[in-house]
Amino acid sequence: MKWYNKNKIDRIINMALDEDIGYEDISVNSIFLEEQDAKAKLIAKESGVLAGSYVFERCFKLLDESVNIEFYKKDGNTFEKQDVLATVKGDVHYILTGERTALNFLQRMCGVATYTRKMVNQLEGTGIKVLDTRKTSPNFRIFEKYAVKVGGGKNHRYNLSDLVLLKDNHIAAAGGIGNAVKRVREYTPYIKIIEAEVENLDMVKEALDCKVDIIMLDNMSIKEIEEAVKIIDKKAIIECSGNLTLEKIEDLRKLDIDYISSGALTHSSGIIDLSLKELELL
Amino acid sequence: MKWYNKNKIDRIINMALDEDIGYEDISVNSIFLEEQDAKAKLIAKESGVLAGSYVFERCFKLLDESVNIEFYKKDGNTFEKQDVLATVKGDVHYILTGERTALNFLQRMCGVATYTRKMVNQLEGTGIKVLDTRKTSPNFRIFEKYAVKVGGGKNHRYNLSDLVLLKDNHIAAAGGIGNAVKRVREYTPYIKIIEAEVENLDMVKEALDCKVDIIMLDNMSIKEIEEAVKIIDKKAIIECSGNLTLEKIEDLRKLDIDYISSGALTHSSGIIDLSLKELELL
Amino acid sequence: MKWYNKNKIDRIINMALDEDIGYEDISVNSIFLEEQDAKAKLIAKESGVLAGSYVFERCFKLLDESVNIEFYKKDGNTFEKQDVLATVKGDVHYILTGERTALNFLQRMCGVATYTRKMVNQLEGTGIKVLDTRKTSPNFRIFEKYAVKVGGGKNHRYNLSDLVLLKDNHIAAAGGIGNAVKRVREYTPYIKIIEAEVENLDMVKEALDCKVDIIMLDNMSIKEIEEAVKIIDKKAIIECSGNLTLEKIEDLRKLDIDYISSGALTHSSGIIDLSLKELELL
Amino acid sequence: MKWYNKNKIDRIINMALDEDIGYEDISVNSIFLEEQDAKAKLIAKESGVLAGSYVFERCFKLLDESVNIEFYKKDGNTFEKQDVLATVKGDVHYILTGERTALNFLQRMCGVATYTRKMVNQLEGTGIKVLDTRKTSPNFRIFEKYAVKVGGGKNHRYNLSDLVLLKDNHIAAAGGIGNAVKRVREYTPYIKIIEAEVENLDMVKEALDCKVDIIMLDNMSIKEIEEAVKIIDKKAIIECSGNLTLEKIEDLRKLDIDYISSGALTHSSGIIDLSLKELELL
Amino acid sequence: MKWYNKNKIDRIINMALDEDIGYEDISVNSIFLEEQDAKAKLIAKESGVLAGSYVFERCFKLLDESVNIEFYKKDGNTFEKQDVLATVKGDVHYILTGERTALNFLQRMCGVATYTRKMVNQLEGTGIKVLDTRKTSPNFRIFEKYAVKVGGGKNHRYNLSDLVLLKDNHIAAAGGIGNAVKRVREYTPYIKIIEAEVENLDMVKEALDCKVDIIMLDNMSIKEIEEAVKIIDKKAIIECSGNLTLEKIEDLRKLDIDYISSGALTHSSGIIDLSLKELELL
Amino acid sequence: MKWYNKNKIDRIINMALDEDIGYEDISVNSIFLEEQDAKAKLIAKESGVLAGSYVFERCFKLLDESVNIEFYKKDGNTFEKQDVLATVKGDVHYILTGERTALNFLQRMCGVATYTRKMVNQLEGTGIKVLDTRKTSPNFRIFEKYAVKVGGGKNHRYNLSDLVLLKDNHIAAAGGIGNAVKRVREYTPYIKIIEAEVENLDMVKEALDCKVDIIMLDNMSIKEIEEAVKIIDKKAIIECSGNLTLEKIEDLRKLDIDYISSGALTHSSGIIDLSLKELELL
Repeated sequence: MKWYNKNKIDRIINMALDEDIGYEDISVNSIFLEEQDAKAKLIAKESGVLAGSYVFERCFKLLDESVNIEFYKKDGNTFEKQDVLATVKGDVHYILTGERTALNFLQRMCGVATYTRKMVNQLEGTGIKVLDTRKTSPNFRIFEKYAVKVGGGKNHRYNLSDLVLLKDNHIAAAGGIGNAVKRVREYTPYIKIIEAEVENLDMVKEALDCKVDIIMLDNMSIKEIEEAVKIIDKKAIIECSGNLTLEKIEDLRKLDIDYISSGALTHSSGIIDLSLKELELL
Repeated sequence: MKWYNKNKIDRIINMALDEDIGYEDISVNSIFLEEQDAKAKLIAKESGVLAGSYVFERCFKLLDESVNIEFYKKDGNTFEKQDVLATVKGDVHYILTGERTALNFLQRMCGVATYTRKMVNQLEGTGIKVLDTRKTSPNFRIFEKYAVKVGGGKNHRYNLSDLVLLKDNHIAAAGGIGNAVKRVREYTPYIKIIEAEVENLDMVKEALDCKVDIIMLDNMSIKEIEEAVKIIDKKAIIECSGNLTLEKIEDLRKLDIDYISSGALTHSSGIIDLSLKELELL
Repeated sequence: MKWYNKNKIDRIINMALDEDIGYEDISVNSIFLEEQDAKAKLIAKESGVLAGSYVFERCFKLLDESVNIEFYKKDGNTFEKQDVLATVKGDVHYILTGERTALNFLQRMCGVATYTRKMVNQLEGTGIKVLDTRKTSPNFRIFEKYAVKVGGGKNHRYNLSDLVLLKDNHIAAAGGIGNAVKRVREYTPYIKIIEAEVENLDMVKEALDCKVDIIMLDNMSIKEIEEAVKIIDKKAIIECSGNLTLEKIEDLRKLDIDYISSGALTHSSGIIDLSLKELELL
Repeated sequence: MKWYNKNKIDRIINMALDEDIGYEDISVNSIFLEEQDAKAKLIAKESGVLAGSYVFERCFKLLDESVNIEFYKKDGNTFEKQDVLATVKGDVHYILTGERTALNFLQRMCGVATYTRKMVNQLEGTGIKVLDTRKTSPNFRIFEKYAVKVGGGKNHRYNLSDLVLLKDNHIAAAGGIGNAVKRVREYTPYIKIIEAEVENLDMVKEALDCKVDIIMLDNMSIKEIEEAVKIIDKKAIIECSGNLTLEKIEDLRKLDIDYISSGALTHSSGIIDLSLKELELL
Repeated sequence: MKWYNKNKIDRIINMALDEDIGYEDISVNSIFLEEQDAKAKLIAKESGVLAGSYVFERCFKLLDESVNIEFYKKDGNTFEKQDVLATVKGDVHYILTGERTALNFLQRMCGVATYTRKMVNQLEGTGIKVLDTRKTSPNFRIFEKYAVKVGGGKNHRYNLSDLVLLKDNHIAAAGGIGNAVKRVREYTPYIKIIEAEVENLDMVKEALDCKVDIIMLDNMSIKEIEEAVKIIDKKAIIECSGNLTLEKIEDLRKLDIDYISSGALTHSSGIIDLSLKELELL
Repeated sequence: MKWYNKNKIDRIINMALDEDIGYEDISVNSIFLEEQDAKAKLIAKESGVLAGSYVFERCFKLLDESVNIEFYKKDGNTFEKQDVLATVKGDVHYILTGERTALNFLQRMCGVATYTRKMVNQLEGTGIKVLDTRKTSPNFRIFEKYAVKVGGGKNHRYNLSDLVLLKDNHIAAAGGIGNAVKRVREYTPYIKIIEAEVENLDMVKEALDCKVDIIMLDNMSIKEIEEAVKIIDKKAIIECSGNLTLEKIEDLRKLDIDYISSGALTHSSGIIDLSLKELELL
């Protein structure tokens, strides 16, 4: 994540540090009145996929540039319970003051990456790719979308200006997909991808006629999806959607679709339990 | 939440809107070239506890002051699947552009409140209160802590300058709880509450000797906790902690403790599925 | 522009007002010690295309919500020298204090729209569309890209995460377009459009083989472009680029290409001279 | 520009980088998956005056402190087409991600400096100095005013609290220059310079009677100006203004005036075409 | 202060409200669970000069636009102990939550205005004007400088880019006032006022020779000042400076100088005790 | 102060530097056209207690990381008139540009610490501790509260969410202290400290009955306080308040109370006069 928009990342981390510190960490500052070097270990309390090592590091670096973090795994690697993932070295004030914020970032990111990896694995051999959605935690999207990628997923649009997604409301208001697409082509540059969300086979055909780039089959039954796949016949990218969780996607394995998108990746993955332990004064 | 720090709330919502909008909602702006009044319903797709109605409203109001939201439930009320929770009325651009951000806030807040309510209910009749932790989503703490309260829980410290919490690392570095508490009393105003996290009965006694206000029994067995309760004998507030989820707290019902604190409230509650539906042009 | 990201627009305008005001407008505040209603006319001192009426209005509204602006033209309309474009009514302090900032925005936006319109007109009947670039004024892109649209042009990517544009450096580093595209498809979601910048016919063929979505012919001669068009044969979108100004595009009229992109639209359009005149105290 | 308000400069550059990067540069990040040192040359594609080398450098330094920029010219130096102005060395991600923003700043600043230099040269030997105005690009004033200085010009007021400039509207509302100046002297500290904009010889006399520091002759004919110069007779500083471009100032050479001010310097100078070329991986 | 830079004022007030509120006013929010209209009186607990009524109002308005404040005095008016200065009406949450911040602003501003007024009165009849300095509270300058004006004083430069002030260090480094002034005239526009700080009569003469606009006699004895006044002989503005407090300026009354500047105005004026009392629920 | 919230501190200092610099320090930049190393001494012009050395250092470091400051005293140490407190070394531009802002911070902080120290000393041997209030300079609280601690005082609540303080208005609205405390215990976590402000002995008894943690005796006579002390009988912490200045606290020495709180510490302490002198070019 090092080459992502550094400014944006640092700004969000700084806000989070500010939120967690308030004026000062009175517990640490009471106990340690002088500079004191220390080190501590980042230990996994359950297995998972690492995502966010750079972010974890920045949480400490933004408190003090001289804190040193060494990771023994890279983003995307799996780890097991009890694995030592990293060592943090520096003045004890910064280690303890930054601990909670750094873990709050890392645990959530590992949670998303781990959940995504499971879904990706479940679809292995099918060619179906896993997409995230915009159902992300407010002001945390850049981190969650990155974690999806680390887990093996792909990112759907980042925001509302990224691509055109025509939903039922747009289509109804425009008087059908055909009109909607026409208005879109007039308004936006041709260069924007157009996706249409459809709910039945008639809409599939209409979308196909309008040459949208992607057709999203929303909450369709397996049977309907199979039918839709035939109709589309490779003339548009196919994305399946609709409350898809780990439990439900097994049924989709056999389908000849391109993508499934799942809000659960970013809103229901939970965290991976990690801990900063074995603090040692040096 | 209306009388919380409005400035802070609006700032975070504005950032989230900015994150989701980018330059413009090209889908909506393509379809609707003129002002167009509309209304839509906020519908529950599963049961839960409402939390965040004010925040949901601000998401639209910050786009356009004249959007009108009417809620049929108040924060803290329960709702069932299919319940219409609110009606949103205003220019269709603002309704559709603000939809996802408003839902992202509300769904997470309802998730936290619902999970908390379940835990509170499970402890009903015991006098034990449920506390949150600092294991919150970065830059989202004010909303999650509020949702915990709405669910019937209580808020532990907001940040590191709020109260003193002496953990193993502080205690070890100071050379025992006694020394640690002494340093704390010198450094901070007496007016700060002091809590000590203890892991065994010897530490309980030591903490008690130092007259800390709250003793946190961390990851102790039921048996140890019972022993600790006797030793403390009402001379300090007792908080139990350690990966407490809905599944595990049943065993704690019979204990004579004051609080249990649970990170799961804010990091593993998941969301409550809500949807903006039945958009109607007026 | 009313339905663009309002938060972003207001933030930039507020910064600009802050830049221009400093502590206070000492000239106005010296002269007018009390509230004083006034009105003034926005007058064109040369002909052009209007773009930015909403932004002009916000410059005053952000000083005082009760200032009232009535425009007699809409964005996209042409106007002639001496035309009265709008009337501004409100407390004289806000009218005079906001004047320069409002004009600085509007004049630049009209400049871009007018220049774009000329280029679009020159290509009339050809089907070739005009695209902008990222060669915009720092922190002014949202306004300049909007003005391009108002002028009849289309917007190329807003920023570096919008679409993939493979230039000579990327291609060389990857070892050819083929490798570059392969890496891109692995890294980004399929859903991103891929454009390749090519400088000769061999590269055109290579790009075509990789199935990029858009091929940008950079600084090619008319003859080469004609050759490229034949090779591409409608299998990719064609964009021509390379210091294209109003003077040079006449030659491109006869070519069967999709887009020409021009940095001049946003970096060399100049302004349209507008003035706030005939201030009248009420 | 190194000793200007660093905080302000960095804030504006960071905003511009954020604007151009979005989440990440997907083109660069696709191609280069590991750290990769590189260097590139900043080459002039037309002749001009250098202004903004420090700003160009900061654009990269704010992405990564270890990027190294060596300039072969200093601000104020002229350069010719094909001149290598600087070498940029560092990780290829930062070079390519920062390129466009750095050039957008530098090209505009060189444009302003070059245009100003031409105007200054045209007035050489006359003692007449060239002033800018407040007709600058929003949020870009500090860079444009600096570039004017580099080009040999002088800066008129930075903002509305800088000095008092009495225009027609103020004068009319106060009931003549005399009253206006009186009010100004009461309201502001004496220490503010007072300038009056006059449109005819009567106003010149009135302004002179009030002992304003500077008299701005706005849109007067050469003949009127000559008359005004005589009347003023060195008792006030004389500034000529009114759509003065390179083409029009030749006529002013013979006049015994102190300053000419020109909005064109910052709103119509255009850019100087510069390019980052010959990227070489190290 | 209504026509000062509103954006800047609101930003500073919002920061201060945020500083004082934290997450919420738990005292008020505990007691009042529903909306509750109320009113309260702003009462003077000692006599003074009112300054900051607009700022006081904004502190409440920024919490809730519908809070209503009616002032019975205007900025610049004097008041006596026990005077009711204003009534605040609105929801009790906003009145009590905003109270401390609003008073913190107003008390300091009245303190500065009152102290300034005393100094101005003490110099009455002499023609000597009172100037402030840059020795202001960080991030509070706009309010303190305004209060100085309300008190009858004048504002010296707002910041370091406002006018040139040559002190001993500059003069020594340049090799005398002459050289310093020469460099200044080359670097800055002529339009900047130049002031020189001098410590003895030789420097006075040198400064006079260089035609600086203002000569600041720093820490000179009455006798030296009298001598300097003769030497300067109206050819420059004279400012006296050097730890001038209310107690010391009596001696300066007889001198023929233009200004005295005093840091004490903004760093040692203390506050005027004001209180929000007699809260009444409506 | 090094381990306080660094982000918050730097943000406030940066704002203050921005406020004082404007665009550039035209005096320094006129005189010194090239880099020029220099050093200067920070000299006390009166005796006092040092507070803010870290903040003073940051004012320069935020302009240029390579400026070096060596302090000869530590925060909390006393110093005498003429003492050299520190040496500042670095490029002369940064030393002179940062001077005023650095002194504005340091002088105020030393003022608060010195005043607090005097009050603390006056109470020596009594066991009574000195508390600050929320009557701080807007946006300067973190610095003033720190200075109080350095002076030997303790910090009362930082903000409105820190602890519950029931004042007359809350108590009246709730219908007595009893009801107020009950509501508070329902609303806030038990973990918040509750303080009640009382004005007479009946209220003392009522507060005691409700088991508030701290009773604040507001503006009571010595006699009443003695009575209250007896009634409270160590069952609550006692804080005395009400316009307590250095002059008035002598009378309180004999009382058996825990704290006195004084707004004067932060609103009427004045500054300690410090100066940057003996600038030497290296």
